[in-house]
Formats: sequence, structure tokens, C-alpha cells
Amino acid sequence: MGFRIAVVGSGAIGSYYGAKLAHGGSDVHFLMRGDLSEVRRDGIFVRGENENFRVAKINCYNSTKEIGACDLVIIAVKATSNFDLVDLVPPLLHERTMLLTLQNGLGNDEFLADHFGAERVIGGLCFIALNRPSRTEIERYAYGHIVLGEFDRPSQPRTREVAAEFNRAGVACTITDDRAMECWRKLIWNIPLNGLSILAGGIDTAAIIGDKNLRQAMLALMNEVIAAANICGHALPSDAWREHLKRTETMGAYKPSTLQDWEAGCPLEIEPIWGEPLRRTIAAGGEMPRTEMIYALLKQLDLKRPSPAAPRLPLPGQGED
Amino acid sequence: MGFRIAVVGSGAIGSYYGAKLAHGGSDVHFLMRGDLSEVRRDGIFVRGENENFRVAKINCYNSTKEIGACDLVIIAVKATSNFDLVDLVPPLLHERTMLLTLQNGLGNDEFLADHFGAERVIGGLCFIALNRPSRTEIERYAYGHIVLGEFDRPSQPRTREVAAEFNRAGVACTITDDRAMECWRKLIWNIPLNGLSILAGGIDTAAIIGDKNLRQAMLALMNEVIAAANICGHALPSDAWREHLKRTETMGAYKPSTLQDWEAGCPLEIEPIWGEPLRRTIAAGGEMPRTEMIYALLKQLDLKRPSPAAPRLPLPGQGED
Repeated sequence: MGFRIAVVGSGAIGSYYGAKLAHGGSDVHFLMRGDLSEVRRDGIFVRGENENFRVAKINCYNSTKEIGACDLVIIAVKATSNFDLVDLVPPLLHERTMLLTLQNGLGNDEFLADHFGAERVIGGLCFIALNRPSRTEIERYAYGHIVLGEFDRPSQPRTREVAAEFNRAGVACTITDDRAMECWRKLIWNIPLNGLSILAGGIDTAAIIGDKNLRQAMLALMNEVIAAANICGHALPSDAWREHLKRTETMGAYKPSTLQDWEAGCPLEIEPIWGEPLRRTIAAGGEMPRTEMIYALLKQLDLKRPSPAAPRLPLPGQGED
Repeated sequence: MGFRIAVVGSGAIGSYYGAKLAHGGSDVHFLMRGDLSEVRRDGIFVRGENENFRVAKINCYNSTKEIGACDLVIIAVKATSNFDLVDLVPPLLHERTMLLTLQNGLGNDEFLADHFGAERVIGGLCFIALNRPSRTEIERYAYGHIVLGEFDRPSQPRTREVAAEFNRAGVACTITDDRAMECWRKLIWNIPLNGLSILAGGIDTAAIIGDKNLRQAMLALMNEVIAAANICGHALPSDAWREHLKRTETMGAYKPSTLQDWEAGCPLEIEPIWGEPLRRTIAAGGEMPRTEMIYALLKQLDLKRPSPAAPRLPLPGQGED
């Protein structure tokens, strides 16, 4: 309440959480490009377990200049479009504007901190499975909660205010005092599942854990990520893979976001999910042999694709995990 | 000279070495199936640096019964067809018949030893790059030499006789007293290059060593294989990767045999190249994290292919490495 909120990046994540906030009564303003006229006409429909609503009137704009200064800017572009933010964000800033990245992987916080000031940056890890069948429709088919934390410092009063804004809108939002560790905890899932799903020829999570050898490769990768996190100073417990395995076993046949990007011909978030964790681990004196292989292979596959299309904002993004 | 020779498996390897021996005056008999009539009519053409010849009259047969007992049986089927040998080989055997496997990877010697007796088994590692544009044409575009050794024992007088037969025919053939170690030495190349070429989307050796990350993954895999060989008791020097890197840098843009198989829709030699080395290393208390990933991914890719076609003898095989 009280926050003036901008959403930059109206793929599945931006549209879903933005629509939830708007539906809950928040003052939300969406940056959109190609989607503008359809969304203006039809609004955004959200469907999921225990929710089924339409936000008829979406405040959407062609440029961030039209939106103007906000208290909270939700960053939901694919990390591959981060450089667009250098121009997009400044018109949204007043002195105390918070930037909330809902992006995957490592390095996004630092990018925002470098360009706009570390004290502005908050991050949210989204545990959610979405599909976006059209520009005006979002389907949520699992989970939805956010783990919110400050960049490089413990939670602040404002962190709780932002969490309260989400909770009021029906989005379960918890707070962490150690966002860096939570980012690594999420990578325990993304590094193996997002990678193997593409490299094994485009298979879903159920197929990975249902195949003896891939399941073993997945578990070995999970342990590799936990060890790397510890080398980098984030004390994840050695059995932190258990919660991820359990979650994967109950989530059904899900295509990880990077596989969805791959199938849609979108750029892959290779650097935040594989490149940056790998570089940090090596810099800390460790190694991630399996991750290094995935990284090299995905980079080459991404490079080889016929016309990477390089879509700019808004991205045709679909799921998240 | 003097040897009565059968060739079982008339893909690129079997056709090339069989034709070389026949051209050199050896008494060679080919098992062929689909290729029979064409090869009977046209013979086999061989083209390569410093060689360009046709063997007009090829002794070819529909069954090994027609061939009958031989002194030397060259086994050149893909390892994925090894079980066919259980029926194919017996008609070729007399009491002292030698079985010479020219196949890739680990486990082929043991398969032959288990079924036909260890004392019969000799193995040859083929360092050669071939293409087989049609059933009657073989193009050799790099190397050609064979490293010959006895299964599980040092070289014998007969080993030198077999090598002499190849050398007489113009095939450089050297002898090793430690075939097991040489098999591992060859895997230093096959495990990374054959694997990465498929997983990176179908790229040749020049593309792998020309890409910074893939080159690094390749070198890491080479070191992993050397370490595994040592754990398994085969004392490869720690810089054994150097010769392979040098060879790869001079061989140009080459598609490893497994990639050729992949593109031709043939079964992949996954077990001898990745599965068996991995199992032996784990049994010896070691690990091959990168190889394990390649193994799991290739198994899944192979499984997922539309109708694996499962060609039986003769195989439409092309290159070797």
C-alpha cells in the first residue's frame, strides 16, 4: 500500500506478480512494448489453483519516461537483456526508489548495484511454475512464493514493507537475511535441471528424475553446487539437495524456464545460472567440473542456433522456476 | 601371407583394411549382406593420400558358413552389434583362429574372450579418419596406422606375424605389449571429442578446439581420462593429452565416428567409449564426473531418437578415429 510500483519486463513473471499486486489494490504501472494494445483492451487474466481473476484495467506504457518516478521497480526481464536497463531504469528513480530483481541466477544484483547504487537493490527468488499462453493470459501451475532479501546486507524495515505489499496481494513472501546464500540454494535446482533438460534433448523434470543415469548426474550436480556454495562462503548444509529432490518429485512433468526459452528461440540465461557461479567458485579456489561442461555445451548450442532472434523487451518469456 | 582372413563387419573400417590386405595379396573373405551385389560387381575403390586403387574381385559372402574356417578373423562391426558375433563367428573358427577386434573402446576384448576363448583375442587400435561415400568407395583422409596387441598378455610371435601381414599391405602396424594401456590412451581422445561433438549440437573437432570453453572442457576431460586410467592400473603419463591435442590441431575439421553414427541414425557406441571406462573407474574407487555426465546425456539422446533403426550387419558405418 502506498508504494508506486513499476514492472519492467512483462513476460510471465512480471505479468503474474504485477497482476497479483494490481488485483490486490497496489498502484502498479507496467512497461510494455508489443503487448501494449492487447493488454490495454483485454487486461490480464490469471488462472491457477485457488485463483482465477482478470485485472481489466492495466496501467501500461510504452516507455519508462511515461511512468515516471516510482517507489519500487520490479525487474523481471531476462538477464540477457540487462543492458537495456541502463536506459530504462533512470526515469523510474527518485532518491529512495528500490529496485527489486526477480531474475534467475547470480550477478543481477551486482549489475543493478553497479549502475544504480547498491543501497537500492533488493532481490526476490521466485518459486513458481508459470505458463503464458498469450500476452493477456497467465497460468500458474505450481507454487508461487517469493523469498525476499536485501543485496549484501540483512533485511531492513523496507524489506518487510515490500514483503507486506506482496502478502497483502496474496503472494506468500518470506524474508531472508542472507540473500546470497538463498540464491545459491536455488541454483542447486537450476544448475542441474535447467541444464540437463536442454542437453538431454529437451526433456522435462519428470523424465530427468525418472532416468537412472540422469538422476544420478542431477544429484552429483546438486552436490557440486552445494560444495561450490560452501567454497564461496555460503554455508549450505550438505543435504540441501533433499528439499529440491522432494519438490521435483511432486512438481510433475515441468519444463524448466531455460528449456522453455530454448524452445521459444529466446536467448538463454547462461551467464547468471552457470557462468557466474562457475567463475566465482574458480576465483575462490574451487572447481565445478560438471557445471563447467554444461556451461561450455550450452554456450556452443546457443551460439549455433539459427538467428538467436534476440528479442528485446517485452520478452516472450514463459515459465520461471 | 599364408593367412586365410575373414572380415566381419564391412563398414568403413572393415572395408578399408580388408581391401588394403586384399590389394596387398592377402587371402581375404568378406562377410557382407546388403552390400553384396554391388561389391561383387564393382569391387572396392580406395582413395587417399598416396593411394588410389581398386580391388576388382572381392571375395564376398552372405554368411560366415560359406566362408568357413580362417586363420585370422577381423572384427569390425560396431560394438553395439557384438551380440551378432555369437552366431557369426563359430563357422570361421579352427583350433588356432585368431580374432582381431578393430573396435572402439573397452569391453570388446572381454566379450570375444568370454565367448570364444581369451587366447584367440588380439586387438588393434585404428588411428584413421575415413569416409564411405558409397558401398564400394572408401576415402581415407588422415592417418591409417594400427597399434596391435594381445588381450591380457604381452605380444606373441603370432602378433608380429599379423603385424607383418598388415605392413606388407602398406598399413603401418606397430605392436604394443600393453594393449589395455593403449586402449585407455586412445580414450583420451574418444571420450571428450566423440562426446562433445554430439552434445554441442553436431560440431567437428576444429570447432571444439576453436571454442575457448569447449577446448577447456576437452582438456579437463582428457585429464580426467588419464587420471582414471592410472586409478585402473594403467600408468599413462600425466601429459599424455599433448599428443592428442597436437593430432587434433593438425587433423582439420573432422567429425568423430560417434557423431557420424549419430547423423546417420545408427546406434551409438556408448558403452565401450563411456560406460565401460566409467564403470571400471568407479569399481577401482575413482570417479569420472565429466564422463558420467556425457554418458547420462548420450544414453538419453540415443533413447529419444525416432526409431533407432538398429541396423545389423553390414553397418553403414563411416569413419573411425
